[in-house]
Amino acid sequence: MYTRHDLQDTIVAVATPPGEGAIGVVRLSGPKAVPIADALFRGKRLADQPSHTLHYGTLREGDRIVDEVVVSLFRAPRSYTGEDVVEFSCHGSPWILQRVVELCVARGARLARPGEFTLRAFLNGRMDLSQAEAVADLIAARSEQAHELAIKQMRGGFSKEIRALREELIHFASLIELELDFGEEDVEFADRQKLQELVGRIRRLVQRLMDSFRLGNAIRRGVPTVLAGRPNAGKSTLLNALLRDERAIVSDIAGTTRDTIEEVHNIRGIAFRLIDTAGIREARDQIEAIGVQKTLEKIRQSNVLVYVFDASSLSAKEVAADIERLRTDGLELVAVMNKTDLVPERTPEDYATPLLPPDCIVPVSAKAGAGIDQLEAKLFELVTGGRLRLEDTVVTNARHYEALRRTDEALAAVARGMAEGIPSDLVALDIRQAVMHLGEITGEVTVDDLLDNIFSNFCIGK
Amino acid sequence: MYTRHDLQDTIVAVATPPGEGAIGVVRLSGPKAVPIADALFRGKRLADQPSHTLHYGTLREGDRIVDEVVVSLFRAPRSYTGEDVVEFSCHGSPWILQRVVELCVARGARLARPGEFTLRAFLNGRMDLSQAEAVADLIAARSEQAHELAIKQMRGGFSKEIRALREELIHFASLIELELDFGEEDVEFADRQKLQELVGRIRRLVQRLMDSFRLGNAIRRGVPTVLAGRPNAGKSTLLNALLRDERAIVSDIAGTTRDTIEEVHNIRGIAFRLIDTAGIREARDQIEAIGVQKTLEKIRQSNVLVYVFDASSLSAKEVAADIERLRTDGLELVAVMNKTDLVPERTPEDYATPLLPPDCIVPVSAKAGAGIDQLEAKLFELVTGGRLRLEDTVVTNARHYEALRRTDEALAAVARGMAEGIPSDLVALDIRQAVMHLGEITGEVTVDDLLDNIFSNFCIGK
Repeated sequence: MYTRHDLQDTIVAVATPPGEGAIGVVRLSGPKAVPIADALFRGKRLADQPSHTLHYGTLREGDRIVDEVVVSLFRAPRSYTGEDVVEFSCHGSPWILQRVVELCVARGARLARPGEFTLRAFLNGRMDLSQAEAVADLIAARSEQAHELAIKQMRGGFSKEIRALREELIHFASLIELELDFGEEDVEFADRQKLQELVGRIRRLVQRLMDSFRLGNAIRRGVPTVLAGRPNAGKSTLLNALLRDERAIVSDIAGTTRDTIEEVHNIRGIAFRLIDTAGIREARDQIEAIGVQKTLEKIRQSNVLVYVFDASSLSAKEVAADIERLRTDGLELVAVMNKTDLVPERTPEDYATPLLPPDCIVPVSAKAGAGIDQLEAKLFELVTGGRLRLEDTVVTNARHYEALRRTDEALAAVARGMAEGIPSDLVALDIRQAVMHLGEITGEVTVDDLLDNIFSNFCIGK
Repeated sequence: MYTRHDLQDTIVAVATPPGEGAIGVVRLSGPKAVPIADALFRGKRLADQPSHTLHYGTLREGDRIVDEVVVSLFRAPRSYTGEDVVEFSCHGSPWILQRVVELCVARGARLARPGEFTLRAFLNGRMDLSQAEAVADLIAARSEQAHELAIKQMRGGFSKEIRALREELIHFASLIELELDFGEEDVEFADRQKLQELVGRIRRLVQRLMDSFRLGNAIRRGVPTVLAGRPNAGKSTLLNALLRDERAIVSDIAGTTRDTIEEVHNIRGIAFRLIDTAGIREARDQIEAIGVQKTLEKIRQSNVLVYVFDASSLSAKEVAADIERLRTDGLELVAVMNKTDLVPERTPEDYATPLLPPDCIVPVSAKAGAGIDQLEAKLFELVTGGRLRLEDTVVTNARHYEALRRTDEALAAVARGMAEGIPSDLVALDIRQAVMHLGEITGEVTVDDLLDNIFSNFCIGK
């Protein structure tokens, strides 16, 4: 469990990814960082050097040279953690990096736990909790939009919005509590009508943030997108057409990994996680029924359904029946009218129904590669367009969403209490609850368990 | 092909290993490194900053923040390459690092080729060729001894020895050439007897270095060690006993990979590559004969043979027959007298023959773990003990070995020529050959093809 007195320790870890490379960095932070470094480093005496300087020399174990290194020196509080920080830039050999860490430990440092450098940055007031969490998101970001959301949050955009909400609530609470001080006299400093309006406005803000979570989560984790359709509708061909240049792009970015059962397709900076399904058809036996159940299950866990049908063989009635069976509340739907090369006379209007408006039907010939750009544009629009722009603050983190949900619950109780005329001290209690839940997001209210939980998801060395 | 005018370019690459981590470093080197960095970096103007300083700020693409970074600034010639170098220490996201490289390229940098930073260090006179080659060895070093050899070579120990040899030869050549100037007068400035002795001494030095290659190569690549013996001699149990704690140690060092068909066992800092073989026995058919052939093949490619036999069932005569069949010239041999727990009365002397002295027989009970330490001590002694100490200069590189071999050939011709009294100008030619071959090691004599070949084995970013 993380406690504040851990800050007395000096911590050490390899900060660069595992494996061989040109450079590997070992990071030391804490009150003894500079003395420990000086005990190992032959070059200038680091204790005499100013902050933000680089020093070339050798790292030694007794008389043996372990490596030629460049030392980066950062003095408290002008460092990532807010403490004295020394970074050894070594040759990128796993063997050397391991050795350097061991030497630091032998001189009194302790191996850092995952995320412990960032935890210290938080505990030392260098960033708030939601900014610290964004650091891990930033490192894991795999698409332009996920990266943009993470960097905005790390730069404090999200915290600013939460703090503004919190201040409004504290102001509100102070008005109510003023009344309590004069309780016996039954004064109302706060105009009840205006208070109701204020609560309503704050709730709308909280709900807008909650609403943004679905998009934010989708962008951070990729948008789960199910491909479904009858056998021979051309799903595989469509998948290949979508992914035509993907492999080259993905392998360009070193270290990216692919989920083995999914394909990831990047459309204008948003990652769509394409989940293929078995062809749906009328279940003739129990095994096929299980197959259909699985497809429906995958659809329920997704944000977008791409329904593919063969326009050369399926009637409007059959398409309507499939849609009826597959659609779920809250699911974005695109129908791909495939094999249009075989039936050029068909139009989306031929298949439109109230559940499936014509602008949700994209004519495609997966085989010829026709219509793919239009399909991508449609998918991009569904996820980003209309209701939400990325310029707004977007919630990406399930913990933040949960805190907002509890804030909203408390505010609902406030609104109800005021409407029902319950005593002001009880209303004040609910407001305090809401203030507390918002404070959990930025870390103004924390418990050690929570920190433990958050930072254990970081990589070691961060 | 590498040419000197490539130095006009500014090169860029990710210098840290691929994958996610706390920190990732992008390295820029060349005449435009600072202007390119200033075009992307918001913080202090780097062009105004002194060398060896660190600067916090943001990297931007237009108005969009790509990352918060720390810039390391090194000014020519006080940098790794000898040129202006800027390193961006970014969050360790493959996506961000890729983006930063792209932005540098958009501003006029070129993607660095493998090893190109170190090539520049060589071309700019920051290190000689054998030192540059040691950089790649250092990064790849997987054991303490391999690391020690690489760092000695990188620090110039090997170059120093080669240069001393070369100077002796140049001095020798000048004496001979002096005679040539007075050719008609038939003077001998150089005492022929002393010259012969000098050539002999230089050849002994060259040969000592050549001899060290077998050890150096073994240390660098690990010592190929074959385990052979009859079926049920207990080879697998012995292998397990040797490797008892190995898995934990290897997984401790992030990024180490194991050869799938071999086990690597580290004894006091030297990596032994243990190669298991099928049990040898009298071939009763063609298939078994092939198996025995394969075992003999593996033995020929190895440095050490560990012959395992079951002392409870094999006679001295049978052991002697196996040894006769398996031994090869130049192969170090250890016989493991296994299952001593079953026959405590047996001693190594019972199995000793002229080919197998008793001190090469180690009594072991692989099952009980007895005698394993003694076996390890014996293996360590065989590779390091007696003939060569690591304090001497050790040749680890096949290219250097080849240059030494050619040097030796030229010197042999010199010795022969002098003995046979051939004209001094021909002798001088052979000496020049020897001087040239030694110069190839340190890069005083180079051709572009050679550089190409050497640096293409480096990782990108180094």
